Amino acid sequence: MTPEQTLAATAVNAWRIYLERAEKFFFALDDEQLQKEIAPGKNRLIYLFGHLIAVHDAMFPVLGLGDRRHPELDAPFLTNPDRTVPTLPSRVDLQRMWTEVHGALNEHFARLTPEEWLQKHTLISDADFAATPLRNRLSVMVTRIGHMASHLGQAQIAPK
Amino acid sequence: MTPEQTLAATAVNAWRIYLERAEKFFFALDDEQLQKEIAPGKNRLIYLFGHLIAVHDAMFPVLGLGDRRHPELDAPFLTNPDRTVPTLPSRVDLQRMWTEVHGALNEHFARLTPEEWLQKHTLISDADFAATPLRNRLSVMVTRIGHMASHLGQAQIAPK
Repeated sequence: MTPEQTLAATAVNAWRIYLERAEKFFFALDDEQLQKEIAPGKNRLIYLFGHLIAVHDAMFPVLGLGDRRHPELDAPFLTNPDRTVPTLPSRVDLQRMWTEVHGALNEHFARLTPEEWLQKHTLISDADFAATPLRNRLSVMVTRIGHMASHLGQAQIAPK
Repeated sequence: MTPEQTLAATAVNAWRIYLERAEKFFFALDDEQLQKEIAPGKNRLIYLFGHLIAVHDAMFPVLGLGDRRHPELDAPFLTNPDRTVPTLPSRVDLQRMWTEVHGALNEHFARLTPEEWLQKHTLISDADFAATPLRNRLSVMVTRIGHMASHLGQAQIAPK
């Protein structure tokens, strides 16, 4: 691998490590556990599970890699707070969507070249990107590691 | 900047973004707020504050950038759980150590070349590194973004 390829692959590897931790955590929860709040009055585990799928699914258009697979997750898990949408997808459906979204995303991540990682994402204008080239696709991915870790950290303090 | 430099700088920039968020959060807490638990029976905010300083201070030897500044933080914030060490540093001392450790760390981060980011860290053997070159200094830094985000996410759900 060239140094560029190793740098990009290192970041992708960190994404995979956190993704595997999150998957291991959320896939081990049964229906009753998914209904638990992380702390009194705070989000339920099922909300964080769906929220991560919704945010990661939105990475396809943000990174210019295609359309959302599951825009229907936005209302229950992104644009509205927990407990305001009466019917949520089942545990099995969420697991299926998690696997589908991340399988497709990780295929893209494995194929992107260093030059492609350095291209602009779709949430920034050409003019802004010219001024701040660090706001590239890689920055979105690394920031999403932080986002995922943040919610996983919260989920891990939920009562067993 | 070369593509290598931009790739490394993008990751460093994500580190800075999360570090600034964490600093803004913890520096805004008064003594009473620092004593609050993130959730019933869980770590207090002061423990997470000191824990982040201790873990980031340990990055100097892990990354081969010099000695720890504050090894005395390990006992109260790293090797023992919260509430087992009777006397903790004051809020002002913690803020001072936070600024000192991150100031020095960020100076190193701004100077490291892409080739230096790709060198092995000190927790891995030469043989293991030869087999898994993604376990380099950059991987430590990106993984610490996840670690910091995880605890910041927990801290943010503490009762106000």
